[in-house]
Amino acid sequence: MNMTKNNENRTILPEPTIRRLPWYLSYVRMLDNQNVSYVSSTQISKELNVQSSQIAKDLSFLNIRGKTRIGYEVKSLVTELEDFLGFDKQHNAVVIGTGSLGTALIQDHGLEHYGLNIVAGFDVRGDVIGQRLGDVPIYNINQLADWQREHRVSIAILTVPVEKAQEVADLAVSSGMTALWNFTPYRIKTPEGVAIANTSIYAHLAIIYNRMQDQER
Amino acid sequence: MNMTKNNENRTILPEPTIRRLPWYLSYVRMLDNQNVSYVSSTQISKELNVQSSQIAKDLSFLNIRGKTRIGYEVKSLVTELEDFLGFDKQHNAVVIGTGSLGTALIQDHGLEHYGLNIVAGFDVRGDVIGQRLGDVPIYNINQLADWQREHRVSIAILTVPVEKAQEVADLAVSSGMTALWNFTPYRIKTPEGVAIANTSIYAHLAIIYNRMQDQER
Repeated sequence: MNMTKNNENRTILPEPTIRRLPWYLSYVRMLDNQNVSYVSSTQISKELNVQSSQIAKDLSFLNIRGKTRIGYEVKSLVTELEDFLGFDKQHNAVVIGTGSLGTALIQDHGLEHYGLNIVAGFDVRGDVIGQRLGDVPIYNINQLADWQREHRVSIAILTVPVEKAQEVADLAVSSGMTALWNFTPYRIKTPEGVAIANTSIYAHLAIIYNRMQDQER
Repeated sequence: MNMTKNNENRTILPEPTIRRLPWYLSYVRMLDNQNVSYVSSTQISKELNVQSSQIAKDLSFLNIRGKTRIGYEVKSLVTELEDFLGFDKQHNAVVIGTGSLGTALIQDHGLEHYGLNIVAGFDVRGDVIGQRLGDVPIYNINQLADWQREHRVSIAILTVPVEKAQEVADLAVSSGMTALWNFTPYRIKTPEGVAIANTSIYAHLAIIYNRMQDQER
């Protein structure tokens, strides 16, 4: 895996590491809430079922060092992980497709604690266009390009029906959005330089069903 | 990766293959809706940006063979993928934690097309206990064990706050549930034989933020 540093001296990490770092964060946030001051990689390892050599390696990307025998300072580890993962910055986003999942994401205030600020929703359905979900206004999808010229957000969250996925992704990209969070099971094609994360919950369902067969033997 | 066959002659697959199969399914379902009869692995490859040798290998686990030059019959491929992935069977599940995400999952009728039938919700909040979300009744979490003795569902969907994740997982497992779909960012520990899939949407957010840094250079 090729790792490069950018101007901000932050590292483009391999995906498995990026997936593990939020586990560590949610665990050390919990310790911090319990007023625990130090944690060792052995302790994280036992709790999260990840090898402690892997944890030490993952955390070596951060600007933090554990102390011999007492381990990492919990508060610093929380701060460094939040900073490193970008959770301490505000990132504006729009939700395209305000069905049940899109609505849930707009209403999920948990996302704010991870730096995601949803500022608008877009849809095609006349009964939701012009309404608000909490503070968030819902616009007609055909206003997206105009809206974006004024607001210049980076992230589009795609929660549209699968057959609309590519079309809506193309629209978001041509409007100047540079990151897509794709919740459809469709494998979207994007131009080079557009960041994409696929969260296909149906694929995870396939994993559960497949693992359950194991139990049936 | 160790692959074994069970009594039903179905295969326990490596996770990357299981993740790709639903992409193929959503694509061939779309072709089927467009009344396309045949599709080649080259065509799937171009559309989904997966190497065609990989597609041929993934599909070789299924009970279907492509024909030289014309490829796979679309309808058969849909049926075989649905069967293989377990999406054509009904799997009963409960949702534990009926906040915004839990509610969205209960109301997402898309899941039914993937064989997931949510039959009850559980929560601790007095204002939702005793209510219904659509057809789905919401019970007090302390009724879970009793309810489960009667209904014997396999799958518990965990959409509780992170600090409750392990406790609720333990309760689901001790009540006899054998598969957990964990939407919290907490890395739950489960006894051997319990199927688990982690859908930590916050981890995907970290991937987006990290990839976006790349653009900032």
